[in-house]
Parts: sequence; C-alpha cells; structure tokens
Amino acid sequence: MTLFDARSGIEIMGRDECLELLRADVIGRVGVIQAGAPVVLPVNYAMDGDDVVFRTAPGSKLDTGPSARGCFEIDSFDRATRTGWSVMVAGRLEEVMPYAVPQLTQLNVQPWATGTRNHWMRLRSTRITGRIVRES
Amino acid sequence: MTLFDARSGIEIMGRDECLELLRADVIGRVGVIQAGAPVVLPVNYAMDGDDVVFRTAPGSKLDTGPSARGCFEIDSFDRATRTGWSVMVAGRLEEVMPYAVPQLTQLNVQPWATGTRNHWMRLRSTRITGRIVRES
Repeated sequence: MTLFDARSGIEIMGRDECLELLRADVIGRVGVIQAGAPVVLPVNYAMDGDDVVFRTAPGSKLDTGPSARGCFEIDSFDRATRTGWSVMVAGRLEEVMPYAVPQLTQLNVQPWATGTRNHWMRLRSTRITGRIVRES
Repeated sequence: MTLFDARSGIEIMGRDECLELLRADVIGRVGVIQAGAPVVLPVNYAMDGDDVVFRTAPGSKLDTGPSARGCFEIDSFDRATRTGWSVMVAGRLEEVMPYAVPQLTQLNVQPWATGTRNHWMRLRSTRITGRIVRES
C-alpha cells in the first residue's frame, strides 16, 4: 500500500514494502542519543523478524545501555534522476544476552571492519516507516 | 592525514578530507532528537563554510526548536568489496532567519521532494569526523 503526503509530495511506503527493503540490504545507519546528542553511525546488520540486529565492539558509541531509544535507517538515492527512498525503524536498543547469540549467528552479520565485534545489539522495532521521492 | 584505530581496524579521516567529501555531495541524513527519541531523515543539503544547510517544510520532524543538538551523516558503501566511508558532522541546529536566506539561495539546495520547503536550517558544526573501512 502506498500513500501520498500531499504537503511534501512524498509517497509513504507500507510496512511490508519497508520490511522487504530492510531484508534485502546488509548495511545501514543506527541513530542513538549519546550524552544528550544524536549520533548516526553505519553498521552491518541483519533482520531478525521485525528487529534489526548488528554487532559492535564493546565500548562502542552504540553501546548505549539497557533499553535506550534508537533508530535505524537505510536508503537509496539516484542523484541523476533526483529520486530515492528511505526506511526508518524506531525502537529500543537492547544488548543480546550471550545465551541468545548462537541463534543470531546464523543470520550471518559480517562486519566489514576488522577487530573484535562480539557484542550483539538488537533494535526491538516499535515503528517502521518508509518514504519514496519519485521523479517529479 | 589518516589515522588508524587499531581496535576496530577503521581508518580515521582527517577534517579536510571530510570537508572535501561533504562539499562533493548533495544528499545526506540529519539526526535529531524528537520527543526523546533519535530520528534520522534524508535531506538535500549544501555546505556553507563548515556548516550544513538544508531546507525543510515548516512543521517537519527536523524543526526541532532553537539550538537543538543535531548531527548530519553522509557515506558511501561498496557492498561487493565490503568497503566504504562515512562522515559525521555534530553540532547545533538553528533556523536560518529570513534576512539571511538570500545569501544561502546561491548555494542551490534543491529539495528532490516537491511541496513548500522555505524553511532553512543550519547545522552549526562543532565536530567533523570520518571513518574509512578498506578491503581487509
């Protein structure tokens, strides 16, 4: 289902379409609040149901403490035609407990960066939204 | 100048390199805090010195009130070689006063979306950082 925001001229994507795009990609951006300021950092990720899971190094900026509010964004832009889309997942971040990690490893989240990234985080999604800007 | 974070295997970009990349692109992502939650939204932008300026519709999610903390991120990823880079600008958001808009219009920020976007915002940068993940 695609809606249309008359004010902005932006199409609103349905949840299923958003999830399809989220399941098709491997890298996106996590947004967190750190010391009162928003921070946006790219991460490799996978979807576990409707949640975003990713690995990070202990002590990373994304290590926000229990149940911090977070978001995750993916997008694709064509600068030549001035079109594109973006999907945002809003939710709460939680650390994945060690006993639950084995069932996530099959999701095959392979960080591109080297170094130890044994710390798994889950963004438990509460809201998934997407927007499309088509050629005008 | 490129440094190297031995823990993560990520190269740290120098400020000049970050600014060069920021000046070369036209679309990125603004991060703000809205009702206590981080929000990340794509915007068309231009650099005005070291600041990021962009246009938004009045009442937009990015209309955060005076001097809110904000950030801005651009990146480029090559999924085939598992490499990429990202640049983040941290700072404070401010509305551009109407008398200052004419000097920004020459920056030619053309939102891809239609609709009225006469509201100009400036992210007054306090910190610009960048990271590179090269082929390992």
